[in-house]
Amino acid sequence: MDFDALFNAELDSLREDGNYRIFAELERKCGAFPKAKSHDTDAPDEVTVWCSNDYLGMGQHPEVIASMQNAVARHGCGAGGTRNISGNTHQHALLEAELADLHGKEAALLFTSGYVSNWAALSTLGAMLPDAVILSDEKNHASMIEGIRHSRAKKVIWKHNDPADLDRKLAALPSNATKIVAFESVYSMDGDISPMEAILDVAEKHGAMTYLDEVHAVGMYGPRGGGLSEELGLRDRITLIEGTLGKAYGVVGGYITGSVALCDFIRSFASGFIFTTALPPAVAAAARTSIRHLKHSSAERDRQKAQVAKLRMRLDALGIPHLDNPSHIIPVMIKDPVKCRQLADILMQDFGIYVQPINYPTVPKGTERLRFTPGPLHSDADIEHLVQALATLWKRCAIAHAVA
Amino acid sequence: MDFDALFNAELDSLREDGNYRIFAELERKCGAFPKAKSHDTDAPDEVTVWCSNDYLGMGQHPEVIASMQNAVARHGCGAGGTRNISGNTHQHALLEAELADLHGKEAALLFTSGYVSNWAALSTLGAMLPDAVILSDEKNHASMIEGIRHSRAKKVIWKHNDPADLDRKLAALPSNATKIVAFESVYSMDGDISPMEAILDVAEKHGAMTYLDEVHAVGMYGPRGGGLSEELGLRDRITLIEGTLGKAYGVVGGYITGSVALCDFIRSFASGFIFTTALPPAVAAAARTSIRHLKHSSAERDRQKAQVAKLRMRLDALGIPHLDNPSHIIPVMIKDPVKCRQLADILMQDFGIYVQPINYPTVPKGTERLRFTPGPLHSDADIEHLVQALATLWKRCAIAHAVA
Ligand SMILES: Cc1ncc(COP(=O)(O)O)c(C=O)c1O
Ligand SMILES: Cc1ncc(COP(=O)(O)O)c(C=O)c1O
Repeated sequence: MDFDALFNAELDSLREDGNYRIFAELERKCGAFPKAKSHDTDAPDEVTVWCSNDYLGMGQHPEVIASMQNAVARHGCGAGGTRNISGNTHQHALLEAELADLHGKEAALLFTSGYVSNWAALSTLGAMLPDAVILSDEKNHASMIEGIRHSRAKKVIWKHNDPADLDRKLAALPSNATKIVAFESVYSMDGDISPMEAILDVAEKHGAMTYLDEVHAVGMYGPRGGGLSEELGLRDRITLIEGTLGKAYGVVGGYITGSVALCDFIRSFASGFIFTTALPPAVAAAARTSIRHLKHSSAERDRQKAQVAKLRMRLDALGIPHLDNPSHIIPVMIKDPVKCRQLADILMQDFGIYVQPINYPTVPKGTERLRFTPGPLHSDADIEHLVQALATLWKRCAIAHAVA
Repeated sequence: MDFDALFNAELDSLREDGNYRIFAELERKCGAFPKAKSHDTDAPDEVTVWCSNDYLGMGQHPEVIASMQNAVARHGCGAGGTRNISGNTHQHALLEAELADLHGKEAALLFTSGYVSNWAALSTLGAMLPDAVILSDEKNHASMIEGIRHSRAKKVIWKHNDPADLDRKLAALPSNATKIVAFESVYSMDGDISPMEAILDVAEKHGAMTYLDEVHAVGMYGPRGGGLSEELGLRDRITLIEGTLGKAYGVVGGYITGSVALCDFIRSFASGFIFTTALPPAVAAAARTSIRHLKHSSAERDRQKAQVAKLRMRLDALGIPHLDNPSHIIPVMIKDPVKCRQLADILMQDFGIYVQPINYPTVPKGTERLRFTPGPLHSDADIEHLVQALATLWKRCAIAHAVA
C-alpha cells in the first residue's frame, strides 16, 4: 500500500486551505533577546522575535543560565530514568517544593511539559473518580481537551467565560456525579481573562472540584508570579492549579499543584507521569532559579506591562486594530489564513520582524491573526520599528480595509 | 465533597497490595557515574546505581556536557515557544537531520519525550488513516497502548513476539483496512528481543505499515547505534522507527523517523507535537552530540556488553537465577511486590546498591523483579560487590527458595 499517498493527500488539503505550516528557523542569541539569527534564506540575518512565549526573557537571565550550566556540570545531562526508576533526583524534589510554595499548596508534581501535565492529570481524574463529569470551558487548550477525551469521562462544554452557563450545566447533573470544572486564567490566543471568582462561586455551590490552567499567567501575574489566582487572592479556593516552566519561566516542563493526596494520586496512577524519562536535573534547577527570581523581583513584570501598554497605545495611534483585552497578549486579527501568512512573510523579509501567522488548528478558521507578545527586553525603538512596519503594510495592502 | 478521601482510598488500596511507590532521591555525580549521592536518610550517603537507563553513561560524557553547556551559553535555556510559534531553532533542524541519518530515513520529527512520540504518532495515524486497524504486540509499552487507545482506531492484540499469530490476525482483517503493525525491538522489562525479520515478512505479505519502537536499542545496537533494525539490516523495510534521547543517549526527548510525507503528516496533525513548547535548543544540541559520538565510537557498547556478560556469569556462578535473554537487561525475578521492595531496601541500606523494585503497573502482578542494567562505567569491583550482596541475601532470606 502506498502510505505516502495517504499522507500527501491530507497535506495537500492543508495546503489548499492555506493552513500548511512553515516553521521559521531561528537561533536565539543569549544576551541579545529578543534578537535572533534567522536561518531562512528569504529573511534578513538578524530578526526581532515578536511572538515568543518566553514572555519575560528569563531564558537568557544570567542566574538561570548559570543554574542550568552548573547543574549540568554537577549532575550530567539527563535524569537517566523515570521518576520511579533511578530518575528521581534532589533537584526534582526541590523544584516541586518551590512550586507548591508558589501556589500556596501542600504539594506539586512535575511533568515533562505543560501539555503532558494537563493531559495526564485530567485523563487520570476523569477515568478514576467515580461518575466523573468534566465541565470544560469551550476555549480550553488542546492539552486539556485531549486529556478529557482520553479519560472517557462524561464531558460537558460550557460557554466561554460564562459562569451562568456553567451554573445551569452543573445544576443539570445527577447528584452522585464527581464534578470537575476545568478552565484557564489567561486564554493565550485572545488574551482574555476568565471571571475566576464567579466561576469558583458557582463550582463551590455545586460541590465541584476546580482545575485551573495558569500556563500563560505563572511568573507574570501576582506579586510573586503565582498567576491570576494569586493576584486575585483566590488560589486557596482552587483544587488544582496547573502551569508550565516553558513560557514566563523560560525553560521547559509542566506541573500541577494541590493537596498531598491529589498529587500523590496523580503520581501513582497517571500513565503520562509514570512511564517516561524524568526531566533533566539541570532543567529542574534552572526552572527553580527562574521561579525564585520572579518570586522576589517585579522588575521584569513591571517593564513588560509598560511595553505592552506602549505597543497598544502606538497601535491605537496609528489606527491598527487589535483585540482589546486585559492581558499581555496583543492579537491583530487578519481573519484569513493566506493573508495572515503573506503579512508575516513581508514583515520577516522586508522588516526583520518575526511574528508567526496563527492559523487553524491553533485558532478557529476565520479568526487567523498575528499575535504579538511584547516583553521587557523589547526596546522602545523595537516597538516603533514594529508599528511603523505595520502602518506601512496597512497603507500598502488592500487588506487594511478588509480587516478594519 | 471531600476529594482527598477519594484519592486516599485509591492510594490505600495500592498500599495494601504492596504497590505503593516510594521514589529513591538521588543526586548523580557527574564524572563519578554510576555513583550517586543518596538523599534518603536510611541509605548510605553514596550509592551505586544499578538500574539506570542512561545505559552507556552518555549523560556524563565530557563532549555531551560541553555541548549542552555551550548551547545554553549561546541560545539560553528554553526554546521560548512551540515548534510553530518561535520555538523552532537551528538546533532542532540539525538534530532531526542527524536522526534521519541514524536510521537511514528521509526525515525525522522530534517530540518532548519518547512517550509523547509514541502517543502522538500512533494516535494520529490511528485516527486519521482510513479504516485504520492497529495490530499491537501484547507487551507493547504504555505509551503505545495509550496512543492506540486515544486514536479510537480498531485495535487487535497479537501474541507477544509471535509472527504466526500476527499473520492469522492480519489475514482476518477486511481488505480495505489500513493496517499498522506496532512492536518493539528490545522489550525493556524482560529484555527479550522481537523476531523482527519474521514480523516484517508477515506485515509485508499483508501490505501493512510497520511501527517499531527502538527506545531500548538506539545507541546500543547496530554499528552506528541505529538499533536492532540497523544491526539486522532491516531498517529499510520499516515504515516508522521511533526512539528516545533519554536512555542510551543520556539526555531527554523522543522522535520518529520515516518518509518525508510521514513525518510531515505527523508534524501537521499531531496535537501532542503541535501544542507544546519545543525542547530546549541545548537539549537538542547535547542529544545530537551524543548520537554523533555513538555513531563513530563502539567503545561504550563493547565495554557494556562485556560488563553485562560478566554480571550474568557471576550470577550463574553464585546460583542466582535471572531471566535469560539476548539483551543488556538482567531481570532477577522476585514475583512478589512486598518481597521485591524489601530486598531492594536491604540492598540500598546495607550495601549501598540502588536497584528499584519493579512492581505493578510497570510489570504484571506476580512478575515483580529487580532489573539490573550494567553499563560501561560499572567496574568489575562494582559487579563483584553486587553479586556478593545478592548471594548474602539469597542465603539469608527464605525467599531464595521461593524464587529459585
Ligand atoms: C493554555 C495552555 N496550556 C498548556 C499548554 C502546554 O504547555 P507546554 O508548552 O509546557 O507543553 C499551552 C501551550 O503550550 C497552553 O497554551
Ligand atoms: C518501550 C518504551 N517506549 C517508550 C518509552 C518512553 O520514552 P521516554 O522515556 O523518552 O518518554 C519507554 C520508557 O520510558 C519505553 O520503555
